[in-house]
Amino acid sequence: MPMSVAKKVLFLVFDGLGDRPVPELGDLTPLEAAATPNFDAIAAKSICGLSNALGRGIRPGSDVSHLAIFGYPMEQYYTGRGPIEVAGLGIALQEGDIAFRGNFGTVDENWNILDRRAGRIRVVDEFAAALDGMEIDGVQVLVKPGTAHRAGVVFRGKGLSANITDADPHAEGLPVLEVKPADDSPEAAFTAKVINKFMRRAYEILDPMEANAKRKAAGEFPANFMLLRGAGIYPTLPKFAEKYGLKACCIAGGGLYKGIGAFLGMDLIDVPGATALPDSDVKAKFIAAKKALGDYDFVFTHVKATDSLAEDGNWAGKKDFIEKCDAAAAELLDLPEDVLLVVTADHSTACELKAHTADPVPILFCSPHVRRDEVVSFGERAFSKGGLGRMVGSDVMPEVMNILGRLHLIGA
Amino acid sequence: MPMSVAKKVLFLVFDGLGDRPVPELGDLTPLEAAATPNFDAIAAKSICGLSNALGRGIRPGSDVSHLAIFGYPMEQYYTGRGPIEVAGLGIALQEGDIAFRGNFGTVDENWNILDRRAGRIRVVDEFAAALDGMEIDGVQVLVKPGTAHRAGVVFRGKGLSANITDADPHAEGLPVLEVKPADDSPEAAFTAKVINKFMRRAYEILDPMEANAKRKAAGEFPANFMLLRGAGIYPTLPKFAEKYGLKACCIAGGGLYKGIGAFLGMDLIDVPGATALPDSDVKAKFIAAKKALGDYDFVFTHVKATDSLAEDGNWAGKKDFIEKCDAAAAELLDLPEDVLLVVTADHSTACELKAHTADPVPILFCSPHVRRDEVVSFGERAFSKGGLGRMVGSDVMPEVMNILGRLHLIGA
Repeated sequence: MPMSVAKKVLFLVFDGLGDRPVPELGDLTPLEAAATPNFDAIAAKSICGLSNALGRGIRPGSDVSHLAIFGYPMEQYYTGRGPIEVAGLGIALQEGDIAFRGNFGTVDENWNILDRRAGRIRVVDEFAAALDGMEIDGVQVLVKPGTAHRAGVVFRGKGLSANITDADPHAEGLPVLEVKPADDSPEAAFTAKVINKFMRRAYEILDPMEANAKRKAAGEFPANFMLLRGAGIYPTLPKFAEKYGLKACCIAGGGLYKGIGAFLGMDLIDVPGATALPDSDVKAKFIAAKKALGDYDFVFTHVKATDSLAEDGNWAGKKDFIEKCDAAAAELLDLPEDVLLVVTADHSTACELKAHTADPVPILFCSPHVRRDEVVSFGERAFSKGGLGRMVGSDVMPEVMNILGRLHLIGA
Repeated sequence: MPMSVAKKVLFLVFDGLGDRPVPELGDLTPLEAAATPNFDAIAAKSICGLSNALGRGIRPGSDVSHLAIFGYPMEQYYTGRGPIEVAGLGIALQEGDIAFRGNFGTVDENWNILDRRAGRIRVVDEFAAALDGMEIDGVQVLVKPGTAHRAGVVFRGKGLSANITDADPHAEGLPVLEVKPADDSPEAAFTAKVINKFMRRAYEILDPMEANAKRKAAGEFPANFMLLRGAGIYPTLPKFAEKYGLKACCIAGGGLYKGIGAFLGMDLIDVPGATALPDSDVKAKFIAAKKALGDYDFVFTHVKATDSLAEDGNWAGKKDFIEKCDAAAAELLDLPEDVLLVVTADHSTACELKAHTADPVPILFCSPHVRRDEVVSFGERAFSKGGLGRMVGSDVMPEVMNILGRLHLIGA
């Protein structure tokens, strides 16, 4: 009888899962303090360890840590947050596109910023549509609405550069900044000129719109300006499926994480109730992830609120949310033998600092095809005794490929 | 009273020793499941750990993993399998030699391959002798018989290159390929021309030989062609003894491993009964290794069948063979105090995949002069808790030199 092998991967990332001891939790971390019988059972069937996405002593953002874990070093593939966020909005980026995160905001006639979010406007579809498809000096501009006041903005054309200064002063009461080239290249000069023209044209289109007249009449901030930030160029990039030969999808509530998936060419699967907030229907995500294993070889599933709660210093909320996730993880106890379950985090977020830290995060590979170790508890310190030892983000996908028996042989 | 120090090294490599859990062995690996009282006793007197020859997440061939463990990075010293295999046949290679693995095969008059192994001919000494010493365009050709249908073939002269295409189509019924230069250099063009002439001359010499007439008359495939593959140039290379100041020898049954030893300038010690097969007289090898410690500072001893059995998916055979090796290891329990015993593997070979994997391998340093840890069992998971932690191949010889007190001081 031929022995079975691992074939598919459910790859689960809890954002900011790792933490530091909390005195009120008896000097346990929120993860250690949480009752996690299901993840403990999963750990007991796993090889476990600790990992730093970018290496020891490096404190990573969520964007670059995810890229590192998926085998895309930031030096080569990270040019700014814009292309990642915009990819998540469904714009199919092309090599050489310059992409921005955009806010619909409010300026006065002298372009002093009155409100960076146009009074936290909830729906901007009409305003985005008014700008989408514009052409400036031969450059096409794509504008796609995001959640609330947000939008994705793409400049597509020849000879563009992302090496330009920001227009957004990141504060109210200050004037919008003129965009300037940040190097001496003709591309940067041209791009700065195009973007300054775009901001002017956008203001001229948005300010007189009837929808804004209504907002002004109602005493609301008009959505009369497009604030741009996070410029990045979409790089030449092997899609995840090409790089690994694994058909991949992404299940995430948060825009950045949908963006990571789309940026790498994963299909996005929408799950109703996946909000990226503590109220997110984590169980529905896990059920959707299991189902997606029918059509996909690699299912990236992201859970956000572990990070957001720690960013608020809310250790009790983080612990409670972890327990909610553990209850949902009952769905993960009966995966087929050929499914490798990976559970990890992109970085630690310490409640005491309300910030990302360089503390390593737990990682487990659950499969009958790994050398299961003696760790039986899902927690930072328990995992420090696991069979994996200390890893870094760039070790993760090679380990996945090794377990699947898909690594190329070096030498003979 | 002066304390003693470690002075000599018995370096024991079990090919492909590491493995994955096997359901029929209660989810133990063949090594964990094997009863190994002698190696357990050795582990108890050792510092233990896990190692990846080329690094985490890299799946190495036996050739490059041995080079890495001995401190010869493949980027610098690996040019192909030819020079390593040929060195093992006793041809003293010189810098710039181009070496090939050769097969005596059978072709028809149109050079279609009828049999790649000349009907699995057992002895080719006469045919090799007929070709040995030929000169083509100022290039000397050395041909030395190997086991069965195999031979080592070396081209020696000025201005040669190994950057040429293969003549061997690696299948029967296809014609022999013309060798072509793989780059624009005059060296590659010249080498391709010489090798094409060699193949023609070899056919003209071999086909009419009386020994082949006899084979044809008996209905056997004649050995009328020399198929070449694995071209590599013998690099500039510090011999092992120069590099480490340790007079070294090699005890191995397998051709590749004799080749590794000879390639690095180690003396080859033949042990009757060392077959590289499961029937190999491992005890005789261990006894010979102990004896060699009289004349040598470093005795590399290689055991092959752990790998071959796993390549066949034969977990039961691998376990049994490990137990046979353990019985032989009774010979290693009484080494003098000044002998450092190192036991490790070049890579894991997983029975479930019938292939090399990137899973780490056990490594132990047994000596009164190391910080012995609490590991008392010779197995992958036991060793994950050892005092060495996780190593890579390039750490191994520095660790050996450290224990011997022979590392150069850096700084002052």
